[in-house]
Amino acid sequence: MNQVLIIAIGNELLSGKTVNTNSTFLAEKLTNLGLTVKKILTLPDEREIVVSELTNALIKKNYRIIIITGGLGPTWDDSTASFLAETLNVPLKIHPEGINIVTQRYQELYRNGLVDTEKITSARKKMAYLPVGAKPIYNPVGTAPGIYFDHKPSNCWIFCLPGVPKEMQEMFSIIEPQFHDIQKKEHLEFYEENLIVPFTDESLLAPFLDQVREKFNVWIKSLPKTYQEGENIMLIISFSSDKNGEAKNTVLKAKEYLNLLIKSK
Amino acid sequence: MNQVLIIAIGNELLSGKTVNTNSTFLAEKLTNLGLTVKKILTLPDEREIVVSELTNALIKKNYRIIIITGGLGPTWDDSTASFLAETLNVPLKIHPEGINIVTQRYQELYRNGLVDTEKITSARKKMAYLPVGAKPIYNPVGTAPGIYFDHKPSNCWIFCLPGVPKEMQEMFSIIEPQFHDIQKKEHLEFYEENLIVPFTDESLLAPFLDQVREKFNVWIKSLPKTYQEGENIMLIISFSSDKNGEAKNTVLKAKEYLNLLIKSK
Repeated sequence: MNQVLIIAIGNELLSGKTVNTNSTFLAEKLTNLGLTVKKILTLPDEREIVVSELTNALIKKNYRIIIITGGLGPTWDDSTASFLAETLNVPLKIHPEGINIVTQRYQELYRNGLVDTEKITSARKKMAYLPVGAKPIYNPVGTAPGIYFDHKPSNCWIFCLPGVPKEMQEMFSIIEPQFHDIQKKEHLEFYEENLIVPFTDESLLAPFLDQVREKFNVWIKSLPKTYQEGENIMLIISFSSDKNGEAKNTVLKAKEYLNLLIKSK
Repeated sequence: MNQVLIIAIGNELLSGKTVNTNSTFLAEKLTNLGLTVKKILTLPDEREIVVSELTNALIKKNYRIIIITGGLGPTWDDSTASFLAETLNVPLKIHPEGINIVTQRYQELYRNGLVDTEKITSARKKMAYLPVGAKPIYNPVGTAPGIYFDHKPSNCWIFCLPGVPKEMQEMFSIIEPQFHDIQKKEHLEFYEENLIVPFTDESLLAPFLDQVREKFNVWIKSLPKTYQEGENIMLIISFSSDKNGEAKNTVLKAKEYLNLLIKSK
């Protein structure tokens, strides 16, 4: 089981103020590890909808990993920890390691002249409240700890990462080794190649792609430009496997077969 | 009822190959019309998951509008019309107006030297199959017609637009007047202002924002930079209303109150 759900929380994503690049970053990283991102959900900062979607995802037991971004900061609408606690039906509590992280980070920022005070105000303290049973994740860039919860009943690891892209990316590199472990244990491999084909017209290329897909079960995405741009189409051929060497082997064979079909057209 | 669901379909979005800018474009346009985007779903080119999500959305009757992007092209994995037909439990059939659009578009492209033949191959014909009861939408850039379906049982307009951003954007401008009609009929207004506040530290700003939110029920998003960047925080204050003038009025009052709070800190 290697399926992933990504949830991006934040009204600014639903009002079109912010492009959801966080989910794209995570999707690429996880795909390259052989994991399969099955769904990306973008949700507003609203308790009812987030709790309902999270609850559904856990009930279905479809996901080995859920990664949530956004909503960990000190303001009123940063409620991810609280949404998660409600979903898991556990209380929120100050985590001793969490408050250490927050305190230590503000002391560092204060020493470096980046904040005006090192005092742990109630807005700062808020970030150390985690669902009982969760563990904080160190934030090397910002101040809000991330959240890790191992949800045993659905065999699902839940991670909450910050919404600020730089913070999210640095924190991801801290948790990445856990995904390497899954990859190794389940022998997950992902391989892909890009190629440019001598077609500007997707409708004439389509029958060849369908033949290759049928024969090798690879995933092929054609990325057409508009006809007006008239550029040759780029293809991505990829395959995920849990057998040693199969992914690369399959993609190379599929590519060779496609080139053959195109040459003999 | 002015809630919108956006669904972006395409494996390339889930493997991190492509950033989902289409959903952001639509979210911004619709928000500015006073509509409320409640959820953005990014799904793979997979029948089971798309049909299941669409079915759920229609059953719940939460949405006045569902906009789907991607999966209208001539290749095997372009199956949005078929997913929609299965969801609605109607057959796919060649639509006379749809095949006219496809034929006419290839004739134009051929005359302009942008495609090699005007012949309607089966891959091209595929794009004119619509769920029975749907109407095609003209595609001024590409060749695949969009799809419009008025789903009366859930009072929901369903639109399928192409995944190529230029095609999607041009087609959106064709359907946009329908949304203006909803806006007018329901007196929807949306107003927002951006402002920069003299804070680099979100945790010290948070208590002021909470006061303003509580008093005016506005949505305020703070867009913090990392502490290392040390830039002042930008805020977006916005309000949606169905009462004449209320949206702008509320935002301006909230902004004035916030400035007052900050000055007297």
